[in-house]
Amino acid sequence: MTDYKLAVLPGDGIGPEVSAEAIKVLEKLALETELGFDFQEFPQGADHYLNTGELLSDETKADLEKYDAIFLGAVGDPRVKPGVLEHGILLDLRFSFDQYINLRPIRLLDSRFTPLKDKGPEDIDFMVVRENTEGLYAGAGGFLKKETEHEVAIQEMINTYHGVERVIDYAYQYAADTGGKLTLCDKSNVLEYSHDLWQRVFKEKSKQYPGVDRDHILVDAMTMKMVRNPEVFDVVVTCNMFGDIITDLGAELQGGMGLAVSGNINPDGVSMFEPVHGSAPDIAGRAKANPAAAILAAAMLVDVLGHAEESARIENAVGQALRLGMQTADMGGRLSTDEFGDYICSLL
Amino acid sequence: MTDYKLAVLPGDGIGPEVSAEAIKVLEKLALETELGFDFQEFPQGADHYLNTGELLSDETKADLEKYDAIFLGAVGDPRVKPGVLEHGILLDLRFSFDQYINLRPIRLLDSRFTPLKDKGPEDIDFMVVRENTEGLYAGAGGFLKKETEHEVAIQEMINTYHGVERVIDYAYQYAADTGGKLTLCDKSNVLEYSHDLWQRVFKEKSKQYPGVDRDHILVDAMTMKMVRNPEVFDVVVTCNMFGDIITDLGAELQGGMGLAVSGNINPDGVSMFEPVHGSAPDIAGRAKANPAAAILAAAMLVDVLGHAEESARIENAVGQALRLGMQTADMGGRLSTDEFGDYICSLL
Ligand SMILES: CC(C)[C@H](C(=O)O)[C@@H](O)C(=O)O
Ligand SMILES: CC(C)[C@H](C(=O)O)[C@@H](O)C(=O)O
Repeated sequence: MTDYKLAVLPGDGIGPEVSAEAIKVLEKLALETELGFDFQEFPQGADHYLNTGELLSDETKADLEKYDAIFLGAVGDPRVKPGVLEHGILLDLRFSFDQYINLRPIRLLDSRFTPLKDKGPEDIDFMVVRENTEGLYAGAGGFLKKETEHEVAIQEMINTYHGVERVIDYAYQYAADTGGKLTLCDKSNVLEYSHDLWQRVFKEKSKQYPGVDRDHILVDAMTMKMVRNPEVFDVVVTCNMFGDIITDLGAELQGGMGLAVSGNINPDGVSMFEPVHGSAPDIAGRAKANPAAAILAAAMLVDVLGHAEESARIENAVGQALRLGMQTADMGGRLSTDEFGDYICSLL
Repeated sequence: MTDYKLAVLPGDGIGPEVSAEAIKVLEKLALETELGFDFQEFPQGADHYLNTGELLSDETKADLEKYDAIFLGAVGDPRVKPGVLEHGILLDLRFSFDQYINLRPIRLLDSRFTPLKDKGPEDIDFMVVRENTEGLYAGAGGFLKKETEHEVAIQEMINTYHGVERVIDYAYQYAADTGGKLTLCDKSNVLEYSHDLWQRVFKEKSKQYPGVDRDHILVDAMTMKMVRNPEVFDVVVTCNMFGDIITDLGAELQGGMGLAVSGNINPDGVSMFEPVHGSAPDIAGRAKANPAAAILAAAMLVDVLGHAEESARIENAVGQALRLGMQTADMGGRLSTDEFGDYICSLL
């Protein structure tokens, strides 16, 4: 019996609803396996911020440090200025816990979910390893002569050798473990500083992984290739900003936000798992939210904790449900949020 | 009889082949209409650089200043380090001639060209107005402790009020003229300096265009929307880097690089028109290159010079050819480069 302490931040909008289903599935998994989970809920999110002024305090962070992993539902609320909750909670978690790997699988479960002609599950199946703590997300920059016609706004894309080396190393290792090719996606023909560093490290690191085939693609060409020949990719490593963009594109190619998962990983620390979708305030509280991505995020959490087999049970159950048309309305089905969760539990 | 002086930089790889077809088509157009063209070829490109060390000298730029427009074939050569020709010729032209608008139509001519299910010409038809002189393309930045494990690489995304205002103004005007909605595509929830400026200017400018509906989308969501619901877009305005990415995605959605066109426009100066594709050295000199994008770039040139009707003749001819299956091998046809050009001339 292995017991894990999980911190759950259900967050805003549909976050609590989908988190509840993910927890339900993990609890069912615990009944069926040797795994055990202890859940502790945290109130951080829009309501908590509006009531207390706290986004994520140092005490909360110190507290979270004690958990084996964090599960995040969704943050975002129309009452709060865009960016505040994203920066103050989501990005702060990624940065404070130094979750320097953002793992985003692009995996099509059934041909009918992709908007692409003639592409099936065998074509759309790759992993994006996104840098998660620096680049354009550094939050560095400023204004000069703000709000005048001479204004200059600067946003700095900052990369460190340390930050680039560790994510590229992780990606090579991932490719080595899974027997795939590693593709670096950058804009090195224009970003002559930042992406020169990526190029050099990518090349240097290859010596440590002589068995891994490597490849390079410019980010603009990447988006083309993803819709024309997604089958050429196995593992893709990229910077924070480009990772954000190409994984959303990838999410759509595999069936949309309803199935997209994000693992924010610190291999030596506390990792965080989340569905990629937002808080969708327009459908919150109406049992319409699709909990599949949250449930798949829980599966990734189980996998990263070291239990690939148990994780696969959840993934297979979701795949089976969707192939049978047992899904929520956004994917063309008729189940409510909790009916979908119940159905997954029944398959475990 | 209106006579235009056009500077032609055929460039590298397939650049000369596709430029020749574009010129052929313009010459045929001249025979059929009141328009006249005087072509002057410039040798700038990889060979010229390797022979003389010149990328684009001040004399050449002063010379180019005297033309009504510039036509560029393609730059890029495996013998030259990536970035050198792009920076030294293409970006230098855009910057030196202050071509602050990059106009990239996303327009599907025939359903069979798109990789998307269930989307036709009525769905994929919008204009991207990309900022073309600043942002991450500013070329500003540097290294600290280069090539050590403490290296820091900084690339600066620099925007000025001046630069943002004029492109947003152009986009509003374009939307007003074409009766469309204007969408700002940015990452304002993360890029709290650069894209805060874009947000403010977008809002402020809307007062001058009360008749134009406006909308906002984050760049990550943009790529999703483009593959799921491209029909929602009319005119999209965005920064240099994001414009680069989303227009390549758009190019693929409308049938690939074989049909993608880029107008680098200075409304008060010398504009430059180019096919978006690269120099494709692997197929150069074998009459396999698809000149359709170059011919469509010539059509855009004619349009921007103020001759919408004559421009439409070329565009319609290309559309007609493609619908009839008269195309090059990359698009599933059997024509050689110059046979395609001849065929277009025969339709004019
Ligand atoms: C909400 C936002 C800050 C975040 C990001 O840009 O990383 C999101 O788009 C994501 O990809 O997880
Ligand atoms: C070649 C490169 C510098 C250029 C760019 O990034 O702008 C190209 O991708 C384009 O979109 O015209």
